[in-house]
Amino acid sequence: MFTTNITPAFLDTDGLGHINNTKLPMWFELARNDLFRIFTPDLDMKKWELIVAKIEVDFKGEMHFGFDVEIKTFIEKIGNSSFVVLQQAWQKGKLTAEGKTYMVHYDFAQKKTTPLTQRHKLELALHLVEENTNA
Amino acid sequence: MFTTNITPAFLDTDGLGHINNTKLPMWFELARNDLFRIFTPDLDMKKWELIVAKIEVDFKGEMHFGFDVEIKTFIEKIGNSSFVVLQQAWQKGKLTAEGKTYMVHYDFAQKKTTPLTQRHKLELALHLVEENTNA
Amino acid sequence: MFTTNITPAFLDTDGLGHINNTKLPMWFELARNDLFRIFTPDLDMKKWELIVAKIEVDFKGEMHFGFDVEIKTFIEKIGNSSFVVLQQAWQKGKLTAEGKTYMVHYDFAQKKTTPLTQRHKLELALHLVEENTNA
Amino acid sequence: MFTTNITPAFLDTDGLGHINNTKLPMWFELARNDLFRIFTPDLDMKKWELIVAKIEVDFKGEMHFGFDVEIKTFIEKIGNSSFVVLQQAWQKGKLTAEGKTYMVHYDFAQKKTTPLTQRHKLELALHLVEENTNA
Repeated sequence: MFTTNITPAFLDTDGLGHINNTKLPMWFELARNDLFRIFTPDLDMKKWELIVAKIEVDFKGEMHFGFDVEIKTFIEKIGNSSFVVLQQAWQKGKLTAEGKTYMVHYDFAQKKTTPLTQRHKLELALHLVEENTNA
Repeated sequence: MFTTNITPAFLDTDGLGHINNTKLPMWFELARNDLFRIFTPDLDMKKWELIVAKIEVDFKGEMHFGFDVEIKTFIEKIGNSSFVVLQQAWQKGKLTAEGKTYMVHYDFAQKKTTPLTQRHKLELALHLVEENTNA
Repeated sequence: MFTTNITPAFLDTDGLGHINNTKLPMWFELARNDLFRIFTPDLDMKKWELIVAKIEVDFKGEMHFGFDVEIKTFIEKIGNSSFVVLQQAWQKGKLTAEGKTYMVHYDFAQKKTTPLTQRHKLELALHLVEENTNA
Repeated sequence: MFTTNITPAFLDTDGLGHINNTKLPMWFELARNDLFRIFTPDLDMKKWELIVAKIEVDFKGEMHFGFDVEIKTFIEKIGNSSFVVLQQAWQKGKLTAEGKTYMVHYDFAQKKTTPLTQRHKLELALHLVEENTNA
């Protein structure tokens, strides 16, 4: 499991006085940085190997400005050339949002899906939900 | 069906040279403005009646800077106190992303879910997918 | 003068109930698209020739969700290898923000500033403030 | 001087492969959180006392994804009812952007500018540029 701390900015709120729902996909992408390093250790975008196929976010409670948010990042499933990332946002001890991101291993030069290597699978497996009992 | 035209900004792209995936929930929220007017005709946020319970976005193709994106907004399902919005992004004649937003009719003063009125249901029903054969 | 219409999204507001100040640089960048076409007619980012050296935004009044914002884009000054863009945001007939962007003509391959061509200067000059008496 | 660490997200880049210029006003606003606590210690937006009158950002070098950015926040000038914030972004040991934000002490209920208190002035003065020799 990877953990990322987010300090909300004033601009992350909306007129209802809470964090706007569209911020969660942004925070979750930021929190996937550690995961990206499995594929591109130096995060050089010219060597990128991943695309996002689908995102989902379940909103479970309001989030507020003035309190840090902890993002927990797990791997839910590992396929042949894709994997599913499970992410949770926690604020003040409560699970406030949960999201899934379906990521595909992609060869940008050849413009096609490409299998995960054995190393990719092993490194991703370290972060599988079932390996992390407090999920 | 509501239709909203989006002109991408330079800042909507990312280092891969395409529109970043996190922009789609933002564009879809903008394209729900017409839908919001069914509940709050003057869009006064102090009288807001809706919350977002869940969002999903399927990415079907790259989107690029330099070409407008058309967002089509339908209603997929109408429940007792909630409804599902189906939205599509089209660029250069291709469906590039499709999303669903699960919205709940909410009483912010009483902090609880509240039934859709008959008027809400009828107005939403005008935009049901099956009523729009070109979906 | 170029004119761009912006429909604010719910997410553009912040907890004070107004449009957040950080949205203005984003809207002004979007409204420079027409200007970008003078340098890169097809807006292909691989052929980009401009960098932003400085931005300034003066806030003159609150902007609100629910009303369109008109961005007027002028050229204030044309130099040898740079120019200054003057932009105004108008909502409900009032000037609500005014910004300047200092742009430099840049050769990304050689990583150096490069003079504006005569054509660039002539096309930019068409949008000079003094040519637009209603500025 | 306040110091805030920013980890860029993939979405903070644009098609040129660098951090997009519009991110700086956003990062600077986030980095003013400590300053906001001088006025509203619990950051409750209902008790807000500040408005942004003007922002300026000078771009001095490209910023890249994959490396943290340190934001240094100083006070440049303290007036009767306003003050100027000076902020710097540093990445890989280089000053990459410098910004100023003109903030006004404001009474939202009465809709008018209101003088800084003696306590405000003293607390702001602790962060004056001249008090911080490494600025």
